[in-house]
Amino acid sequence: MTAKIELSARAVAGPGTHVEAVTSTMGPASIESHYDEALSVPGILAAVRAHPADGTVIACFGDPGLEAARELADGPVVGIAEAAMHAAALLGRGFSVVTTLDRTRGRAWDLAGRYVAAGVCRGVHACDIPVLELDRDPTVTDRVVAVARAALAADSSDVIVLGCAGMADLPAVVSKRVGVPVVDGVAAATLLVQSLVTLGLSTSKHGEFAPPPPKRYTGLIG
Amino acid sequence: MTAKIELSARAVAGPGTHVEAVTSTMGPASIESHYDEALSVPGILAAVRAHPADGTVIACFGDPGLEAARELADGPVVGIAEAAMHAAALLGRGFSVVTTLDRTRGRAWDLAGRYVAAGVCRGVHACDIPVLELDRDPTVTDRVVAVARAALAADSSDVIVLGCAGMADLPAVVSKRVGVPVVDGVAAATLLVQSLVTLGLSTSKHGEFAPPPPKRYTGLIG
Amino acid sequence: MTAKIELSARAVAGPGTHVEAVTSTMGPASIESHYDEALSVPGILAAVRAHPADGTVIACFGDPGLEAARELADGPVVGIAEAAMHAAALLGRGFSVVTTLDRTRGRAWDLAGRYVAAGVCRGVHACDIPVLELDRDPTVTDRVVAVARAALAADSSDVIVLGCAGMADLPAVVSKRVGVPVVDGVAAATLLVQSLVTLGLSTSKHGEFAPPPPKRYTGLIG
Amino acid sequence: MTAKIELSARAVAGPGTHVEAVTSTMGPASIESHYDEALSVPGILAAVRAHPADGTVIACFGDPGLEAARELADGPVVGIAEAAMHAAALLGRGFSVVTTLDRTRGRAWDLAGRYVAAGVCRGVHACDIPVLELDRDPTVTDRVVAVARAALAADSSDVIVLGCAGMADLPAVVSKRVGVPVVDGVAAATLLVQSLVTLGLSTSKHGEFAPPPPKRYTGLIG
Amino acid sequence: MTAKIELSARAVAGPGTHVEAVTSTMGPASIESHYDEALSVPGILAAVRAHPADGTVIACFGDPGLEAARELADGPVVGIAEAAMHAAALLGRGFSVVTTLDRTRGRAWDLAGRYVAAGVCRGVHACDIPVLELDRDPTVTDRVVAVARAALAADSSDVIVLGCAGMADLPAVVSKRVGVPVVDGVAAATLLVQSLVTLGLSTSKHGEFAPPPPKRYTGLIG
Amino acid sequence: MTAKIELSARAVAGPGTHVEAVTSTMGPASIESHYDEALSVPGILAAVRAHPADGTVIACFGDPGLEAARELADGPVVGIAEAAMHAAALLGRGFSVVTTLDRTRGRAWDLAGRYVAAGVCRGVHACDIPVLELDRDPTVTDRVVAVARAALAADSSDVIVLGCAGMADLPAVVSKRVGVPVVDGVAAATLLVQSLVTLGLSTSKHGEFAPPPPKRYTGLIG
Repeated sequence: MTAKIELSARAVAGPGTHVEAVTSTMGPASIESHYDEALSVPGILAAVRAHPADGTVIACFGDPGLEAARELADGPVVGIAEAAMHAAALLGRGFSVVTTLDRTRGRAWDLAGRYVAAGVCRGVHACDIPVLELDRDPTVTDRVVAVARAALAADSSDVIVLGCAGMADLPAVVSKRVGVPVVDGVAAATLLVQSLVTLGLSTSKHGEFAPPPPKRYTGLIG
Repeated sequence: MTAKIELSARAVAGPGTHVEAVTSTMGPASIESHYDEALSVPGILAAVRAHPADGTVIACFGDPGLEAARELADGPVVGIAEAAMHAAALLGRGFSVVTTLDRTRGRAWDLAGRYVAAGVCRGVHACDIPVLELDRDPTVTDRVVAVARAALAADSSDVIVLGCAGMADLPAVVSKRVGVPVVDGVAAATLLVQSLVTLGLSTSKHGEFAPPPPKRYTGLIG
Repeated sequence: MTAKIELSARAVAGPGTHVEAVTSTMGPASIESHYDEALSVPGILAAVRAHPADGTVIACFGDPGLEAARELADGPVVGIAEAAMHAAALLGRGFSVVTTLDRTRGRAWDLAGRYVAAGVCRGVHACDIPVLELDRDPTVTDRVVAVARAALAADSSDVIVLGCAGMADLPAVVSKRVGVPVVDGVAAATLLVQSLVTLGLSTSKHGEFAPPPPKRYTGLIG
Repeated sequence: MTAKIELSARAVAGPGTHVEAVTSTMGPASIESHYDEALSVPGILAAVRAHPADGTVIACFGDPGLEAARELADGPVVGIAEAAMHAAALLGRGFSVVTTLDRTRGRAWDLAGRYVAAGVCRGVHACDIPVLELDRDPTVTDRVVAVARAALAADSSDVIVLGCAGMADLPAVVSKRVGVPVVDGVAAATLLVQSLVTLGLSTSKHGEFAPPPPKRYTGLIG
Repeated sequence: MTAKIELSARAVAGPGTHVEAVTSTMGPASIESHYDEALSVPGILAAVRAHPADGTVIACFGDPGLEAARELADGPVVGIAEAAMHAAALLGRGFSVVTTLDRTRGRAWDLAGRYVAAGVCRGVHACDIPVLELDRDPTVTDRVVAVARAALAADSSDVIVLGCAGMADLPAVVSKRVGVPVVDGVAAATLLVQSLVTLGLSTSKHGEFAPPPPKRYTGLIG
Repeated sequence: MTAKIELSARAVAGPGTHVEAVTSTMGPASIESHYDEALSVPGILAAVRAHPADGTVIACFGDPGLEAARELADGPVVGIAEAAMHAAALLGRGFSVVTTLDRTRGRAWDLAGRYVAAGVCRGVHACDIPVLELDRDPTVTDRVVAVARAALAADSSDVIVLGCAGMADLPAVVSKRVGVPVVDGVAAATLLVQSLVTLGLSTSKHGEFAPPPPKRYTGLIG
């Protein structure tokens, strides 16, 4: 999956942009619960510290550790849910999210509440495909297409957001079959970070996202 | 600080309730940034798993790991910001939060957005006291009183919420001096969890908060 | 119905708590319209004045007279819709209300807008059972169960709130059959008031809920 | 005060409109608390029943009993806060309310939340004048003008709403001195009801505002 | 269509009110897209300048040019969507809009967000009838009735707003068949403007709606 | 000003991106009122039709004609207020807008309500500099810096958005002096459109933003 994500990012990055995909060395094999997400964060933050960069993308649709990463990194940090929802908001009246498991829908709604104005995210719909099946199950595209079509009708929406980094290879084919723009957050976030770097913009260090105060840590992480 | 918190909880718990305060064995010495909070969560969740109970309170005002803990625990789980804001909403037209450092204000606003209706949380104000100074600095009470008074006037509020578990010994004295109800989340959460247990109520396992699916973990935590 | 409510409250009250259920001596036989609710309020407020207590529960799901009662009473006052919605918000991602008549749904939505954050109350559903039939109609449980199941599916909710004091005997049986937490406001409010008293907290008298200014009254009430 | 209100209504009513001002025979001498408001409602509803009309105005800025009156009356019913806020929303970017006592500000905010879109009511400001002083205190106009000016600056508003039926004689003079439109709800509501009658429109009886179901009443009212 | 609109306005205007319907001499034949609406605005504003009046109604449900017209005109200016939604909000718990083409629904939602409190506009439904067919198609009434009935059920609403000036002849017949109040904006706006004039109220010139600063214009309009 | 805007866009565009700045041939010399904005739109839309491009930026902070342009253009269309607010939302907890004249503040608030989640735009502040003075007045930078500093303090914000295309040369110098990220919409929109083109994404033609239906036009525009 890391390879697929890297490919998706490199396909859109500008000629002067070097893309490096880093897999966290610590955490769950996939993120499908609040527990998984919580345990993924220390590994993500360790990777952010170990790989300083002009800009950083967090490539999981739950945007785990985004705020803490903004405190740690000098350059801009963008989550893929954040990037996908921002892009989708520019493309139509309202979008529907198509995600993996039903239990992750609450998190997607929470993020939509943070990233876009009320009414722009119209619905969050699950395909009932576990994350690690995305690469193995040959019916994935058909199922995403079916759920996307149903979502557009049910939500009166006109744009689809793919709700998992593991769907980074799907936007073109789904868009062609469904007939509306389909946004993948990995590519969108890559260009958003690249743009912020070009603009010379990064996280404000005036207040909440200043570097975290040094602290004594107990146990294995920190 | 753990002792102070335990004392505050025991002081209000009913005769049939056994209170055990557990200090996480993993994480930062105090929580004053998104980074601190993120790194505190694995230790909190490990403690939740290691100490099964009829009900659980997470005693940090950022309510770190609350949703993941709800997935893990059989009994109800309540955060102290959640409990304090719920209680404050029953006592007046609107409350102000008095917290430690300015940089933690954003998190308090986020939680208010989740826990209470719009307009109920009127303001979040910092005392500029680091968490670990709360127990050492003799001027803490005076400063909390001063900030609380200013907050009531600026926010047209009529209740104060103390925004740190380390302030659990202050509500009575601050209330007396300021003249409005002052809510500490530790005591409030203790009684809220006790009440939910008495009512036979616990986290719904129908959907988002079902036990997390078993997963292979890499690295040191999980 | 008063007996059933008293039973429900006593079943959860702590050993040191004395529960007294008071039936208003003035007002409609049941509350199923804004008119009924308006006419119930003077009787409720007279009862609040005639029965000073450490804390008060208003046991009608419309929470009639709640704000005026807070002005009158020294101790905390909690409505059962307020208590039930607060408790339900701690137990899942979102709740559905199951109430009696369709025409009372608007009031339930109004209260939800006051008590919980946007999106937490997911739907309000009527069983089409008049309040006074709740005690006589043997099909009540089946109908509440059917409406609750339909509500969970339609609303993507994971908790049920019972929207009438006359349903105070139903939560356990409905929860068992439906498979999610079911909250009755009478028991929840009893423990919430008991908790506030234990915490030494009561309505702020700093402003809106100060005792009402003395006034000359015309006519039969006042 | 009833005479002043009647005068204000008659001054704007069309040639074919008969205005009758009715003083409730039951209730407090003025409405300055939730308790006063609650006790005023039965008298108001009795007057609505005793004085059937093509349309009805409830002439207290708290709009007491409005929803119940809509159930009772065949014709349209409009509250003066409702009418004033509706009119003010047509006249500028945002309005400020100037009301009597500080403790009534919460109710005004609640009504604004019901009547106008978010952001349209910019502030609610008290003159600290008891209702019954409005007719006696020669400094009333000056004080209303001063509070209105301060409100326009503090709220970035461009319209003033007078928050008490007892201010029905003030809009012209205050507007002249302050330089923005000043709305009195009594006149506004009179014309709004007259307009609805002309349009052949009245409260929907399809659902919530259908006539209240007949009911057995206990005690003195009903 | 202008004749029908004029008739509708005259039918409700008071004896002292002179109604003049003006057709813009510049713009699209009907307004069914954002593009149509944008191109209609200069003609509308030219008409506002060429026809000074005590008060002005903009008789297109998109309320095109409303804010600019408020800057230009001395008297009050009301849009028909604005007037219809304001009136509908006084008549029930929530309204549904029945409009012409599906693609105009977004604009109606935007206006509802500006004019009424959240939750009052419950749905916007299209009849799939182009504006210019309204006068020619004998099935219009039947189709509006069918869509209105479906909307009331789907939205739990109790009032209908007609979403096109070209439906100004329909409210009585649709209301009779559907059984709820049906609001046409043309008549409602006429009376609203007449009322504001009677009240001596007009757009605040204190700030945003002051006359536009004189400006050099290029090209054909200005 | 067009030259300055073009420079700002070219400075950030990628090597494969050709930037062409087009001045509308029809409309007001600057946009400082709703009237100016309304009259600018036909010229903007004519330019969009006359200059087909892979993607389009509308370079006025009021985003005039944005929705109509989305109907007309095949490629993505982004407004500079939209782009600046999206970028600012990625850089901190909340932003303040610094704009030209006080009377344009309302429009900026409206756009913020559409583009970002509630609470992200913290304030809109005017420098009292007419648009055409921006290029002539040597005190502009000092005044923008002063207003920005005051805004950060008053709004508890941590990012500044410049609210006029004519400020496109200011972000670097203002940021250096004020100490927080400062976003200019011209550069931000250029990169946002470039990114959407790279992603193969454009406005959804499924519904509201489909090409406008052909129409007969009267008068000089269309």
